[in-house]
Amino acid sequence: MDYNGLIIVFMCLARCIVTYMLCLSHRHVATVVSGTELARQIHKEVQSDIAKLVAQGSRRPHLSVILVGDDHASHTYVRNKTRTASLLGMSSSTIFRPSSVSQEEMLELIDKFNRDRSISGLLVQLPLPEHINERAICNAVAPEKDVDGFHIVNIGKLCLDQRCMVPATAAAVWEIIRRTGIETVGKNVLVVGRSKNVGMPIAMLLHSDRNHERPGGDATVIMAHRCTPLPRLKELASLADIVIAAAGVPHLITADMVKEGAAVIDVGINRMQDPVTGKHRLVGDVDFEAVKVKAGFITPVPGGVGPMTIAMVMKNTVTAAKNAPTY
Amino acid sequence: MDYNGLIIVFMCLARCIVTYMLCLSHRHVATVVSGTELARQIHKEVQSDIAKLVAQGSRRPHLSVILVGDDHASHTYVRNKTRTASLLGMSSSTIFRPSSVSQEEMLELIDKFNRDRSISGLLVQLPLPEHINERAICNAVAPEKDVDGFHIVNIGKLCLDQRCMVPATAAAVWEIIRRTGIETVGKNVLVVGRSKNVGMPIAMLLHSDRNHERPGGDATVIMAHRCTPLPRLKELASLADIVIAAAGVPHLITADMVKEGAAVIDVGINRMQDPVTGKHRLVGDVDFEAVKVKAGFITPVPGGVGPMTIAMVMKNTVTAAKNAPTY
Repeated sequence: MDYNGLIIVFMCLARCIVTYMLCLSHRHVATVVSGTELARQIHKEVQSDIAKLVAQGSRRPHLSVILVGDDHASHTYVRNKTRTASLLGMSSSTIFRPSSVSQEEMLELIDKFNRDRSISGLLVQLPLPEHINERAICNAVAPEKDVDGFHIVNIGKLCLDQRCMVPATAAAVWEIIRRTGIETVGKNVLVVGRSKNVGMPIAMLLHSDRNHERPGGDATVIMAHRCTPLPRLKELASLADIVIAAAGVPHLITADMVKEGAAVIDVGINRMQDPVTGKHRLVGDVDFEAVKVKAGFITPVPGGVGPMTIAMVMKNTVTAAKNAPTY
Repeated sequence: MDYNGLIIVFMCLARCIVTYMLCLSHRHVATVVSGTELARQIHKEVQSDIAKLVAQGSRRPHLSVILVGDDHASHTYVRNKTRTASLLGMSSSTIFRPSSVSQEEMLELIDKFNRDRSISGLLVQLPLPEHINERAICNAVAPEKDVDGFHIVNIGKLCLDQRCMVPATAAAVWEIIRRTGIETVGKNVLVVGRSKNVGMPIAMLLHSDRNHERPGGDATVIMAHRCTPLPRLKELASLADIVIAAAGVPHLITADMVKEGAAVIDVGINRMQDPVTGKHRLVGDVDFEAVKVKAGFITPVPGGVGPMTIAMVMKNTVTAAKNAPTY
C-alpha cells in the first residue's frame, strides 16, 4: 500500500470512530436505578439500628402481620416482608384468618395487638374481603404501630407535613429519588395515579416544603389519573422532569411521552400472561425498553420500587420500636 | 346624491357594522362571577335549613369564635362571620383573649366549649401568637364542631375523600365552580399556592374521584407554589382550563399566562397601599382588568371568594348542628 492509500484507510477509520462516538452520544441510555441495591443500603441501616436498640437493652423489634383469605399475591407480599424482617434480625409473626372472618373479630385482634407491648409494628395486609370496612380496620391500628401509614391520623399528619409513618410505597419512591441524587426543588413532577396508598401520598411528599417538620420535595406536582385524557397526559408528561407511574396500567408510559433525560419511576406491578408461552410475568406501568433509551434515570420492574417498599416497611417498624414507650 | 353615491355610502356603513361586530366578537370579556350573589343563594339555603331545624324542635345553631389579640384583619373577619350568622338566624358569641393568653388557657377554653351542648360550631381565628402551637389548638377543637375543618382528623378525611368539615375557603372555591357550571372532569386545573388551609385542600377536592363518599372534581391538578419558576408557571398556566390563584402575591397571574376562555378564581386578599393617594385597598392574586378580557370566567376581589368563604362557615355550622346528638 502506498502512502496515499494509508492516508485514505486512516481517514476512513477516523471517520468510523467519530461516527460511532456520535452515535453513542445520541444513543443515550438511562441509568437503571436498582431498587434491590438501594434496599440493601437500607437493610444495613436497619440492621445497625436494631443492633443499637438491642445493645441499649431495648426489646428486639417485632412485626406482626394479619393476613386474611387466600389471595396468592397477598401471601407472597407478606412472606417477603416477614422473610426480610428475619434476615435483618427482627422477629415477626403472621396471623392467618379465613376470608369469612368478621369485622368484629378483626377489630378485637387488632385491639389485642395494639395493647401487646412486645409488638412494635402491626399491619393488616390489604385488600380485605368486601364485608369488612378497610377504613375501619386501618383506623383501628394504633397510629404509633401503624407501619403501613394508613391510619387517618398518619394520613392527616402526612398531608400537614408533620413527622409520621409514611406509607411504605410513597416512602420508597422518596428514598429512590433522594438516594439517586435526583433534584426535585422547582422541578416538574408528574404523578400518574391517585390511589390513597400510593399516588396521593407521593404527591404530598414531593410538592411540600423542604423546611417543614417532615421535609418535602418543593416540586411542582401534577396529579394525573384515569380521567386525564391521553393527549393531555402526553402533553404534561413532556414537561415533566420526573414521571412517577402508579396507575396500574401496563406500559401506559411510552417513549414518545417522556422528556429526554427525565427520571422515570415505575410503581406499577401488573401480572401479565405471555400470549405465546402462556407464562405469567410482572410488568410495570412503563414501557421499560423503549423509555430506557430516552430517560435519564429509570427503575425496572421487578427490582425497582418493590424491594424498596419492603425495606421501608422494615424501616417503619424500627422507627415504631424506637418510639415505643420504654416503661 | 346620485344612485352610485348612495350605494357607496351604504357599503361603507355595512362595512363599519361588520368590522364593529367582528371587533365585538374578538373583544371577548369574561363572565364576572359574583361571590356576593352566590353567597346570597347559600344564605337562603342556610336560613331554610335553620328554620327546618328549629321547626323540628332542635336547638338554634350557635357559632362560637375565639379571637386572640388585636390584629385588625382578624377582628374584621370575625365581625363579618358573627354578623352574617345573626342575619341568617343563628346565634353566635365571640370570646376575646389578649395576645398574652397561655396555650393552657386556650386548651381549657376549647375543652369547655367542646362539652357545651349549646354550641354547634367552634372556631379559633388564626393566626395565633407565636408562643401558641396552632396545630395543638386546631386538634383540640372537637372534630364534629370544627367548622374551619382544620382538625387533623378532618384533614385526614378530606384527603381520603370521606365526608367531613371541608375548610371554608376550599369549600367556597368548590361551590363557585359547581354553581357556575364550570366543568372539571378531565380538565387541567392549576392551583397556585399550597397552604394547608387553602391550596392543599382545593387540590384534594378537585383531583379526587366524583364517585367517592365526598365527591371530587376528577380534574388533573397541578400544584404550583413559590418554588415553581415563573417561566414554568406560565407554561403550566397556558395549559390550564381553570386557574386557582391562592399564593398571596398581588397580580401574580397576568393575562399573558392565561388560556383564552379559562376560568380564573382569585383567592388572594392582599392589602395594598396606593402610591398616589396613600389609601389602602384589597387586590387579588390576579391582574383582574387584563385577565378579564381573556378569561371565560373570573371572580373579583373583593366580592368573589371572600363572601363565599363566610357563607361556607355558616353552612358548616348548620351541618354541625344537624349532626349534633339530640339527647
